[in-house]
Amino acid sequence: MMIRTELFLDVRYYETDQMGIVHHSNYIRFFECGRSDMMKKVGIPVEKMEEAGVLTAIVAVECRYKHPARMGDTLRIVTVMDKTPTAKIVINSEVYNQDGQLCASGGVTIGFLDKNTLRPMRCPEWMIEMFENYKPE
Amino acid sequence: MMIRTELFLDVRYYETDQMGIVHHSNYIRFFECGRSDMMKKVGIPVEKMEEAGVLTAIVAVECRYKHPARMGDTLRIVTVMDKTPTAKIVINSEVYNQDGQLCASGGVTIGFLDKNTLRPMRCPEWMIEMFENYKPE
Amino acid sequence: MMIRTELFLDVRYYETDQMGIVHHSNYIRFFECGRSDMMKKVGIPVEKMEEAGVLTAIVAVECRYKHPARMGDTLRIVTVMDKTPTAKIVINSEVYNQDGQLCASGGVTIGFLDKNTLRPMRCPEWMIEMFENYKPE
Amino acid sequence: MMIRTELFLDVRYYETDQMGIVHHSNYIRFFECGRSDMMKKVGIPVEKMEEAGVLTAIVAVECRYKHPARMGDTLRIVTVMDKTPTAKIVINSEVYNQDGQLCASGGVTIGFLDKNTLRPMRCPEWMIEMFENYKPE
Repeated sequence: MMIRTELFLDVRYYETDQMGIVHHSNYIRFFECGRSDMMKKVGIPVEKMEEAGVLTAIVAVECRYKHPARMGDTLRIVTVMDKTPTAKIVINSEVYNQDGQLCASGGVTIGFLDKNTLRPMRCPEWMIEMFENYKPE
Repeated sequence: MMIRTELFLDVRYYETDQMGIVHHSNYIRFFECGRSDMMKKVGIPVEKMEEAGVLTAIVAVECRYKHPARMGDTLRIVTVMDKTPTAKIVINSEVYNQDGQLCASGGVTIGFLDKNTLRPMRCPEWMIEMFENYKPE
Repeated sequence: MMIRTELFLDVRYYETDQMGIVHHSNYIRFFECGRSDMMKKVGIPVEKMEEAGVLTAIVAVECRYKHPARMGDTLRIVTVMDKTPTAKIVINSEVYNQDGQLCASGGVTIGFLDKNTLRPMRCPEWMIEMFENYKPE
Repeated sequence: MMIRTELFLDVRYYETDQMGIVHHSNYIRFFECGRSDMMKKVGIPVEKMEEAGVLTAIVAVECRYKHPARMGDTLRIVTVMDKTPTAKIVINSEVYNQDGQLCASGGVTIGFLDKNTLRPMRCPEWMIEMFENYKPE
């Protein structure tokens, strides 16, 4: 399985800090925006997944910073899931600016939780089917 | 009824923006920190109030900016409730820096909601009693 | 003078709070996103304005909350400037969800500052000309 | 060299998300708060370091999540620098709740930049001296 989606985000003024660049914590948030966008495109928007009883727990996150993003930049968030989810899934992200420069790259490890018991569970079969049926536009 | 509490907060780096000052949206968050602190001191921490079935809905907020706060500042958040809550309550806030300069002042109008019905309700009597029994340290 | 622009923003997961709705402070940020978008469309992106020596200081902000926005919502931010800027300008904003419900409305009063002296200044003539020449798409 | 500092932070309502827990991106911010606090205690507040011509660039960050923090929690941020800084420095952080449970741990790799040239530099000698002279309270 290999799903790859792209999302474009304009840098917001409040995301800059007094060094005049996008604060490093925001890339973790951009990664999440990319994942939410992927889930929406796959047909499982995050809020629907939660309503269906599946929560996700962030297990780990890592990010390497390459080039600062700045106010005025339009960022391209590339989100990649390249393995079939089991009890966990790793989703990788890259953030590029409008000049194609890689600003940051990283990944997030996510576990699935049963909303009722809050216990770990495997990614439900219906979700895996939707991932498998995903056709890029 | 008149309750007045103070909370001290150090400016956080990520709260600054590329003008080198605390971004204006953060004062709305400082106001909330002050209110959470007031509720804790009164004996009704926000999370306990919610567990007890009372939610709050922000109806309106306004803030006037007087002097920019900066990294390195320790802010004093003064939070004042000067009327007995009914279906709504106005809570006023002032933010001073360590030199006693007023950085911002404003207020928030809050309505009470029944957690089960999500309908407006009057501030419960047990909460009013706790407000009335509050003794400043 | 009357300039009115629209910007669409998807709610981001981190913008929600434990009440399951978009935290009230974020609307102040959505207002700013709308203003940045207006400036970009007028041909004066915020970062270019700052490079040209003009800073803006937020003087006051107010927001009235009507209907909670939620994860999954696509918000329409309507930004209106209906007076020629002088030393100050008021910009009004409305936030609607995809069903046309008004989530919040408010306004921001902004003053212009000379970047070198950090003293108040009138809105520069070249900026007023660009506002006047703005043609909606 | 080994410097270890502790900072206590109350969870803020806006830091929670609709899962009812502190959003994972905020731990990256808590780590930064811990580092700012360490620098202040060492006698080199971040804003003074920047005024002295030394900027820091975040090279990489990673965080492992163990236990969710919630509204009402008072977090203890433990910040550790266990090597003498060279051109880079790794600072490790742990976040505990009031019950001593480890909520998250991670680390940040930071590079030093000359503020004028924006080029990498070694950590200045005067800073290393201050680190070496640090006496825990």
